[in-house]
Amino acid sequence: MSEAAQTLDGWYALHDFRTIDWTAWKAASEEERETARLELFALVSEWESVEERKEGSLALYAIVGQKADLVFMHLRETLEELNAVENAFNRSAFARFVKPEYSYVSVVELSNYMAAPGVDPMQVPEIVARLKPTLPKSNHICFYPMNKRRLLGDNWYMLPMEDRKSMMRSHGMIGRSYAGKVKQIITGSVGFDDWEWGVTLFADDSLQFKKLVYEMRFDEVSARYGEFGPFYVGNRLTNDSLGALLK
Amino acid sequence: MSEAAQTLDGWYALHDFRTIDWTAWKAASEEERETARLELFALVSEWESVEERKEGSLALYAIVGQKADLVFMHLRETLEELNAVENAFNRSAFARFVKPEYSYVSVVELSNYMAAPGVDPMQVPEIVARLKPTLPKSNHICFYPMNKRRLLGDNWYMLPMEDRKSMMRSHGMIGRSYAGKVKQIITGSVGFDDWEWGVTLFADDSLQFKKLVYEMRFDEVSARYGEFGPFYVGNRLTNDSLGALLK
Amino acid sequence: MSEAAQTLDGWYALHDFRTIDWTAWKAASEEERETARLELFALVSEWESVEERKEGSLALYAIVGQKADLVFMHLRETLEELNAVENAFNRSAFARFVKPEYSYVSVVELSNYMAAPGVDPMQVPEIVARLKPTLPKSNHICFYPMNKRRLLGDNWYMLPMEDRKSMMRSHGMIGRSYAGKVKQIITGSVGFDDWEWGVTLFADDSLQFKKLVYEMRFDEVSARYGEFGPFYVGNRLTNDSLGALLK
Amino acid sequence: MSEAAQTLDGWYALHDFRTIDWTAWKAASEEERETARLELFALVSEWESVEERKEGSLALYAIVGQKADLVFMHLRETLEELNAVENAFNRSAFARFVKPEYSYVSVVELSNYMAAPGVDPMQVPEIVARLKPTLPKSNHICFYPMNKRRLLGDNWYMLPMEDRKSMMRSHGMIGRSYAGKVKQIITGSVGFDDWEWGVTLFADDSLQFKKLVYEMRFDEVSARYGEFGPFYVGNRLTNDSLGALLK
Amino acid sequence: MSEAAQTLDGWYALHDFRTIDWTAWKAASEEERETARLELFALVSEWESVEERKEGSLALYAIVGQKADLVFMHLRETLEELNAVENAFNRSAFARFVKPEYSYVSVVELSNYMAAPGVDPMQVPEIVARLKPTLPKSNHICFYPMNKRRLLGDNWYMLPMEDRKSMMRSHGMIGRSYAGKVKQIITGSVGFDDWEWGVTLFADDSLQFKKLVYEMRFDEVSARYGEFGPFYVGNRLTNDSLGALLK
Repeated sequence: MSEAAQTLDGWYALHDFRTIDWTAWKAASEEERETARLELFALVSEWESVEERKEGSLALYAIVGQKADLVFMHLRETLEELNAVENAFNRSAFARFVKPEYSYVSVVELSNYMAAPGVDPMQVPEIVARLKPTLPKSNHICFYPMNKRRLLGDNWYMLPMEDRKSMMRSHGMIGRSYAGKVKQIITGSVGFDDWEWGVTLFADDSLQFKKLVYEMRFDEVSARYGEFGPFYVGNRLTNDSLGALLK
Repeated sequence: MSEAAQTLDGWYALHDFRTIDWTAWKAASEEERETARLELFALVSEWESVEERKEGSLALYAIVGQKADLVFMHLRETLEELNAVENAFNRSAFARFVKPEYSYVSVVELSNYMAAPGVDPMQVPEIVARLKPTLPKSNHICFYPMNKRRLLGDNWYMLPMEDRKSMMRSHGMIGRSYAGKVKQIITGSVGFDDWEWGVTLFADDSLQFKKLVYEMRFDEVSARYGEFGPFYVGNRLTNDSLGALLK
Repeated sequence: MSEAAQTLDGWYALHDFRTIDWTAWKAASEEERETARLELFALVSEWESVEERKEGSLALYAIVGQKADLVFMHLRETLEELNAVENAFNRSAFARFVKPEYSYVSVVELSNYMAAPGVDPMQVPEIVARLKPTLPKSNHICFYPMNKRRLLGDNWYMLPMEDRKSMMRSHGMIGRSYAGKVKQIITGSVGFDDWEWGVTLFADDSLQFKKLVYEMRFDEVSARYGEFGPFYVGNRLTNDSLGALLK
Repeated sequence: MSEAAQTLDGWYALHDFRTIDWTAWKAASEEERETARLELFALVSEWESVEERKEGSLALYAIVGQKADLVFMHLRETLEELNAVENAFNRSAFARFVKPEYSYVSVVELSNYMAAPGVDPMQVPEIVARLKPTLPKSNHICFYPMNKRRLLGDNWYMLPMEDRKSMMRSHGMIGRSYAGKVKQIITGSVGFDDWEWGVTLFADDSLQFKKLVYEMRFDEVSARYGEFGPFYVGNRLTNDSLGALLK
Repeated sequence: MSEAAQTLDGWYALHDFRTIDWTAWKAASEEERETARLELFALVSEWESVEERKEGSLALYAIVGQKADLVFMHLRETLEELNAVENAFNRSAFARFVKPEYSYVSVVELSNYMAAPGVDPMQVPEIVARLKPTLPKSNHICFYPMNKRRLLGDNWYMLPMEDRKSMMRSHGMIGRSYAGKVKQIITGSVGFDDWEWGVTLFADDSLQFKKLVYEMRFDEVSARYGEFGPFYVGNRLTNDSLGALLK
């Protein structure tokens, strides 16, 4: 039996992708649309005050292409709170005009591969802040789920801890070389959803997503052991741009 | 020909995942919704008395994310009874407001890899109780189906019995180290559904699902031989929280 | 070039899986439902007289779980007759209340791996009866399609005839050990549908499906060379239980 | 770099699979159905005169099972003509009663593996006739798309030309042994659709499809290098049987 | 860690595939259809003036077969502009008559495998023109997404830079031999969509797509390392032929 890496776990995450039913939206009366808009803005406003109280966080982006129109990324302390967020949305008047497209359930995670020995990471304020983060307000978001491969000779989970540690270190160095350009939030989903991790990237320059992910692909951790699910890329929605979208 | 492990089989299980059609629900009159709620609660109450009579069991949870809204996990003595449960649900007024999402047919199973020689397991009351269990009332559920891999050099079913036995023993030890934190119900589905087993976990702390499944992933049984289907995670629905969801 | 095993081919088979649209059924008037029921029973009765005339056969079962509600397994002399059966069903008033879910087109097949040399199998009445069978009236049905694997070193079709013959013999011995418990009908679908064979099992005790398929999975033919599609399991529908389902 | 086999290319092909919406058909007035039938027969008649003028060809069959009800296989000189055929169908009154199910875009192709050296194949009238064929009026059709495998050690495209040539020769000999029983039309779809080739077989005895495809599966070209998509099998529709289907 | 190839990145691309809902189109009043047509032509005209201003480009083609009816390929400086294009389309009266089918988000890319040392490619006007191109007005389009394989022994991303460079050079020579016949636009989608690259080909003779892609398939880059997604092929839509399609 190979030794499991310890993880540190923070807030639960729900990535909630929705498509606007434009035909229903255009067929509705202006009054119905106004009600829908008001209820949506009331929810967003409520979620923003949760963020202000440091009890969770919200990222809201418009997805490019047909995969979805909107993504709501929610962070909360518990799965019950995430479920309450979903239900409030589904019960709102706005929900009638969107269709569910894809969702992802995970928990903010820091891997312990690089832990300093003898230090309790939960005593390091910077680490605690990364486990319960306020999501960035960057111009762009990128989300994809991934697995570590277990295929015949290329089996991550059969590698000795030392090998995994050294590969993750080199992998992390690529990430760090994008500091200030790309903010990366890793969420673990083993036992929660169909892939092992979710990766959410934030950047003001969307080209940095491509540069980072492409450079990492040549790193052994990705090249030999990475399996990737669907990729979503989007543009930030402020209250103004959300209003303009639904005008 | 490799020797098959004997299994002990108990109650049949149906995991029945459903999504609420919120648009239809909101469009219905309050009277229609009340009828739907009453018929749903009457069914749940009937299933609870089956559980009280030890003729079956019910677990009812709200699934987090878009994969489903509800899961009804039913245990019964026969496939005919499971089918009758489905049909009663489908004929109820509540069924109009939900869509089928996913289901799983299996039978509660104890593998005999760890059997003491010369003992008839059906004479051990603890074993019989595990084959026909009353499902836990834990805060959280986790369900996923799985296969043992048969891929070129990594072929579980071509391994000698002794090797499988020793790997399963080490695998079981991880499970046992979560005693009191995670309750695990294994159901066999060879011949009944698309994967070979269903795994249903119950825990009060949902993070324990991730810890357990992640730790097991480094164990050779999972690392080399495990193939996993979709994962579902949920929060317990009591009569009160179910009522609140459908208020 | 490896030598192909000869097969003996009998009646064509159509497995026709359907889901009941309960919302449409409940929304229909009692008169519409009565018409639908009468037309369905008229079709079933017609198909039963085809069976009595030994010109085909019918098995009708309720599928457990959400994969389907009903399966009609039809045997006929020609593809034209199977198509006529489908069209008669689709044109009936009952068809409005069901949705197609899955179907399988194949032909009853006996492999010739175990043929006695110098014997014309079509002169053996028992063999002819197995090629044009009257389907059992057992309590339960199990259906799954399957392939023989062609993957790098594990390639069934590249094996010498002698190896295949000896493996099939050992495989067949497992089947025979279930004589009286499980009746097995193999249908070939190379050139007709997406898998190479369909396997239809009939048993009064549904647990025997699991025991048989699980035991076979350790046999080299399945362990190394078997690839399996979706599994369906069901309970027999008599006129009475079909009537009760649609009451 | 391995040497590509030259191909000879003839007419473009569109296989257009459609499912009849029986509920809409039965709900329509007899007048609407009559209009739909007349427009369908007018199209078929137009396509038949294209065939008479040797400017294309049509095969029309009823597919067995739920995968589709009808397949229209069209041959034309250009992609623009195929698109015009589609659009004429989609604009007809009959189109309201069918749903698209699957389609395949390819071009009639003769591989040049067996070319006699020094001969310009386009000067051989028999070859030209095979590139722009009038489709057979056989009782049955079988269609499936396929790839040549590129998987680690089993990589068709990395083999020397000589090896591919010799394997294709032995493969072709199986095909030729079915002369008079099965007519085979190969269409190439590299760059046009999701598989590399489409195979369309015509036979009066549908069992010959199974015999041919099964025998070929033991041939190294298929056994090691063949990857197969969905299979469709059908019965010929004459004007009479089409009329009866839509009566 | 293997060295990543540098890429040069230009305009963002959105391939937007849509299917016409012919039933809705035929059911609409002539007035509604006229409004839809006018709004569509107004959008196309707006996008053409963007192209004239060299701020983006549009290719509009009719897809052959059931995969889609139309593809709009848009190039723009930013993801925000692409999203605005989508939203304008979705809000138009024409959008009611089409369904989304498939889309692809990427960025025009030139690989740097063949860069001359010591030259800044962004100073080469021809290179800049290729990064922000006006799309060809050829008769035909072909689009497919693709990956470089990472599978056990066949792992592109684990190869030394020199090997990749030499294979890409030979690959590029095939492309160049089609100069004047096929125009090729490569877009990178790592971090943006589900495959690593999109390939869009333009040609006046559609058979050249098949010849080019088939010849490349024997080249080691494709033969061992290419993984291909769905293929789409189409015919150019001018204002006249678009008008005729929607007449």
